[in-house]
Amino acid sequence: MTTAAKKVLVTGGAGYIGSHTVVELIENGYECVIVDNLCNSSYDAVARLEILTKHHIPFYKVDLCDAEGLEKVFQEHKIDSVIHFAGLKAVGESTQIPLRYYHNNILGTLVLLELMGKYDVKKLVFSSSATVYGDATRFPDMIPIPEECPLGPTNPYGQTKLAIEHILHDLYNSDNKTWKFAILRYFNPIGAHPSGLIGEDPLGIPNNLLPYMAQVAVGRREKLFVFGNDYDSRDGTPIRDYIHVVDLAKGHIASLKYLDAQDQSQGICREWNLGSGTGSTVLEVYRAFCDASGIEIPYEITGRRAGDVLNLTAKPDRAKRELKWQTELDVAAACRDLWKWSTDNPFGYQLKGIDAKFGTPDEEFDGRFVTIGAGSRFQATIANLGATLADLKVDGQSVVLNYKDEAGYLSKDSCYIGATIGRYANRIAHGKFNLNGKDYQLTINNGVNANHGSIGSFHVKRFLGPILKNPSKDIFTAEYALVDKSENSEFPGSLTVTVLYTVNVATKTLDIEYTGNVEGEATPINMTNHTYFNLNKLNGPESIEGTEIQVISKKSIDVDANTIPTGSIIDRDIATYNDAKPTVLGKRSPDYDYCFVIDEKEVPTEVNTSSKKLKLVTTAYHPDSNIKLEVLTTEPSYQVYTGDWLCAGYHPRQGFAVEPGRYVDAINNKYKECVTLKPGETYGSKIQYRFS
Amino acid sequence: MTTAAKKVLVTGGAGYIGSHTVVELIENGYECVIVDNLCNSSYDAVARLEILTKHHIPFYKVDLCDAEGLEKVFQEHKIDSVIHFAGLKAVGESTQIPLRYYHNNILGTLVLLELMGKYDVKKLVFSSSATVYGDATRFPDMIPIPEECPLGPTNPYGQTKLAIEHILHDLYNSDNKTWKFAILRYFNPIGAHPSGLIGEDPLGIPNNLLPYMAQVAVGRREKLFVFGNDYDSRDGTPIRDYIHVVDLAKGHIASLKYLDAQDQSQGICREWNLGSGTGSTVLEVYRAFCDASGIEIPYEITGRRAGDVLNLTAKPDRAKRELKWQTELDVAAACRDLWKWSTDNPFGYQLKGIDAKFGTPDEEFDGRFVTIGAGSRFQATIANLGATLADLKVDGQSVVLNYKDEAGYLSKDSCYIGATIGRYANRIAHGKFNLNGKDYQLTINNGVNANHGSIGSFHVKRFLGPILKNPSKDIFTAEYALVDKSENSEFPGSLTVTVLYTVNVATKTLDIEYTGNVEGEATPINMTNHTYFNLNKLNGPESIEGTEIQVISKKSIDVDANTIPTGSIIDRDIATYNDAKPTVLGKRSPDYDYCFVIDEKEVPTEVNTSSKKLKLVTTAYHPDSNIKLEVLTTEPSYQVYTGDWLCAGYHPRQGFAVEPGRYVDAINNKYKECVTLKPGETYGSKIQYRFS
Repeated sequence: MTTAAKKVLVTGGAGYIGSHTVVELIENGYECVIVDNLCNSSYDAVARLEILTKHHIPFYKVDLCDAEGLEKVFQEHKIDSVIHFAGLKAVGESTQIPLRYYHNNILGTLVLLELMGKYDVKKLVFSSSATVYGDATRFPDMIPIPEECPLGPTNPYGQTKLAIEHILHDLYNSDNKTWKFAILRYFNPIGAHPSGLIGEDPLGIPNNLLPYMAQVAVGRREKLFVFGNDYDSRDGTPIRDYIHVVDLAKGHIASLKYLDAQDQSQGICREWNLGSGTGSTVLEVYRAFCDASGIEIPYEITGRRAGDVLNLTAKPDRAKRELKWQTELDVAAACRDLWKWSTDNPFGYQLKGIDAKFGTPDEEFDGRFVTIGAGSRFQATIANLGATLADLKVDGQSVVLNYKDEAGYLSKDSCYIGATIGRYANRIAHGKFNLNGKDYQLTINNGVNANHGSIGSFHVKRFLGPILKNPSKDIFTAEYALVDKSENSEFPGSLTVTVLYTVNVATKTLDIEYTGNVEGEATPINMTNHTYFNLNKLNGPESIEGTEIQVISKKSIDVDANTIPTGSIIDRDIATYNDAKPTVLGKRSPDYDYCFVIDEKEVPTEVNTSSKKLKLVTTAYHPDSNIKLEVLTTEPSYQVYTGDWLCAGYHPRQGFAVEPGRYVDAINNKYKECVTLKPGETYGSKIQYRFS
Repeated sequence: MTTAAKKVLVTGGAGYIGSHTVVELIENGYECVIVDNLCNSSYDAVARLEILTKHHIPFYKVDLCDAEGLEKVFQEHKIDSVIHFAGLKAVGESTQIPLRYYHNNILGTLVLLELMGKYDVKKLVFSSSATVYGDATRFPDMIPIPEECPLGPTNPYGQTKLAIEHILHDLYNSDNKTWKFAILRYFNPIGAHPSGLIGEDPLGIPNNLLPYMAQVAVGRREKLFVFGNDYDSRDGTPIRDYIHVVDLAKGHIASLKYLDAQDQSQGICREWNLGSGTGSTVLEVYRAFCDASGIEIPYEITGRRAGDVLNLTAKPDRAKRELKWQTELDVAAACRDLWKWSTDNPFGYQLKGIDAKFGTPDEEFDGRFVTIGAGSRFQATIANLGATLADLKVDGQSVVLNYKDEAGYLSKDSCYIGATIGRYANRIAHGKFNLNGKDYQLTINNGVNANHGSIGSFHVKRFLGPILKNPSKDIFTAEYALVDKSENSEFPGSLTVTVLYTVNVATKTLDIEYTGNVEGEATPINMTNHTYFNLNKLNGPESIEGTEIQVISKKSIDVDANTIPTGSIIDRDIATYNDAKPTVLGKRSPDYDYCFVIDEKEVPTEVNTSSKKLKLVTTAYHPDSNIKLEVLTTEPSYQVYTGDWLCAGYHPRQGFAVEPGRYVDAINNKYKECVTLKPGETYGSKIQYRFS
């Protein structure tokens, strides 16, 4: 008997309710696999879920109607149960393109159920809707609406949900009642995750009250239309049952656990309303949102909308009684969370200046490459693999070495091109260190030493995320994370790091900020970025020849024959800012692979340097391209490497690297303190590449 | 404005109701294209429809879920409207494999509607079912059932029909109400076409009362089960509304015409019950069928069947009022027609000893090859193209020349191998003849003469059918027809011919019977079969060398340098039955291409010889294979041809032909009478190939 987490296939998991449910699933110890065709959602929701949950979430861009594509998911994952959100869901649109609704929603479900049968996965939570009731007010005593209310959808969307409910019942009855189906009839989901990271991101004009108000509040739309104030309610506007999306998501966990708790030999097929049981008028919700946002949203009362009725409030007693679930959050909380989501992400996931492609031909999302500042004069492309800087373009010209897809980065001799280096950049003498009285031995991978984290190097680890943001006009950020568990590492402690790339298009700067936190035991840490620059890449003879460099100081760590510090600091033959002329890199010389120090007297004792001021440590300029690079950092030292050992598709001296970081082998000498991250502490450092 | 017939796409047109509707459509001047996946039907229904209607009916073996396959139909035919029968339809089965029902029925309809929209075909008659009402007895005053009765199917089959009704309504409402949809809710279709050629052919155990009774009556099942006789009816058994399938088929024509009559600018989506309005109990139907069949069918009363209710009778008033349609045939007529169908075809279309394949790789049915006597020691394969004898196997050995697929038969120099020859076999001098005072000129295709019907030769015409039958254990028949219209011919008159192949496995004989009828004007006619035999094909040196032949008479028509009869009869050097030794065919000689006459004194004056006794005219034997062929005929003469001009993939003298027929060029000499078919007359002739 394995105690491995149960794997839940979440169809439509990139969508509004799906994404919130994934958070709750992972918090409840389930693993998730997401399938979504992204026709009305964004992969960025999944990328954000990875950061939010600190879990890798396998994703498949598959339409459920594509049986072959979907089968691959069942082949590659041992699925325990399915939560089925995927479907077109706009009531109004469904009346315009009904065939697409029927085709997509019904066929998608059938293909899913067929494959579930084939792979003996017989537990499913289905995302139905209160829309199946239609106008419950046409029957006496059916408000609040109980599950027994006669059904009668009044639009194609609702018809597809009802047809699927019938399909589930018929399948249940056909197969000795061994399937377990939970049919959840949602009332009106609103709000967003309190983190502000995920929320509802409707493409086009929102169909629902809350997203519409939010768009008015952030200035994307002029005013709210209230359809009728002559209903027989407290304030004349219709009454609906609004439910916080986090409550709704929790309802799925409750129903999944309920299915799990059923006798193995006996299935179930049952409906539950997921609603609060409390109705709110349109104007009450309006008021709550104005209060939450502090904005008095303009609105206009217009005529009643065809098909609208006075009151559609859930009777949620069955869910409370059987699923032990009820709503915990009110409309005010939902409005506050929606407002945080809306202000943090005024355009939802739909950011201009962001582009994403996939490093593998079949669009597997694992190999994603994201470009921030896309289409502008300064853009950075980052790969999930190694949170690698996979391209950097200044005025349209690439200035870094890179590979066109993941295969290059994964090749054995990839030279760390562009990668995030960790846990420990630069050499550790003989791969040995001692922490808290314990000796550790890393695999030797560089002469007699361990270099760049050795076999646990971050450059081939797949980072979570990113969270992409565009906080102001010229600024784009991409935040990656990695959970590097101690059991998968030669280092002690489970380390979580983040890498935040910030592009400023106006100033042509790329900032890279690292953070780290460790659990369990302390760990050595020293992170940097290993980009090889070539400022004349477009025109040049595939060489750094002609690059003019100047550094902040000639002082460099002296090393012995094993390239391990002797303890002395010596001067190297390189131009500083004080020198009238820069050092010009030639075809074969000068060759550098030295760790320069900025100020011997100011070596940090703290593991976190990020509050320090960025210092300019190196400038590089190429007269042919007229591109100038300045490297700034909060770190005490920086390796300058003229790439004389470059390989893996590149020639020696085709690029140079400037790698800020802590002193070489600090973990084994008097600088140990600043490279030791203890539980409770936060590692931090920053690098900036500035172009002009 | 063209007055071409409107083309109706009939999905599921090979099925029970579909096939009967095709007959009515063609009788009402429509053209039909049938699409059917044949999962629960047989192409033989379509082949029979061709003969029954004397129309070619383009057929596509396509599953409606296969959008690409279905689109081909819309590309190749200008469809005016669609009658949509295709769907799985067994209530009981639907409760066992509901996913397949939903998938097949709903997706098939969606794909169809999507393509209709794409090709601007917006008129559809949909085959719904009274099953959508479910138990109408649960409402007061709903028996007989009006269209307004609330719907509530009680099984997945009914749910799929209801879902499709919703889809049609939603599509109608979505698109400016421009579509025209007739939703026909069938009650209980029974009976068969009075011709006995088409009927219900359920695979497996029939689900319905009448086919079940019929199978009991013909001995395929032991007894009938009557589910409950304790209902509150005249005799205790439940009441249903039975409707003759021909009436039902006519309801489709009525509704199609009703749709046509609607204002062009305004669509419609409306339901009509198709029922008689008269209920019959199970025992009443039982009695009617016993009376029709003359058989007292054993039955057993068992308990009520779950879900059955007392009375489900249609209120057919709406159809009567609006479609001007009502049933005309009663249960007794349906039972009589069913009995004819059952006795003519005790195993429906499911005949053992019949095999069919398609001459083209993509299974286009136009190129069908049918083997009768398949699996036995004597089997004939016939192609629709030219009603050609495409193979003949004696004890497993092929004894005729042939091609593996249609391409060979269609090649320009195919030498008429195995083909039906018509309208006029053998030479017509200078291609000229005179009938009723009119001169006709055929294209010269053989020296200075016209041969074998010239460019209108039947050997490359696609015959209708076949009707395949197995009237007794050893007898298999395949009947083909061809409508050779005068406007498509150099000959006068529209000629309809039939070719009936009869295999007798016991006697190893193949009979070929020709009939012909002409409309409009008289036509010359002289039909034969142009098989090349090689009795030692399996072992031999690809030659007829060693074949021993004897004929009934040495007497042969003398011909001039242009191979046209001189008027004399001369003797040829060939062994007759009276000769002690046969003529042995050698490598290069003797070479024959002569028309031998059987009896100069007994030349027919009638165009129909089929009532004459078959005469043995030629025997052929090969000592290596020990196979003997006897050719018999009702004809006055026979061409013996040793194949010295064979080509088209064969060598000279690789096969020999014996072609019974009328005298060469009879149309231009004193034998004219017997080759002139006048309107009202019937041409007839027979050939028999007998092996031992």
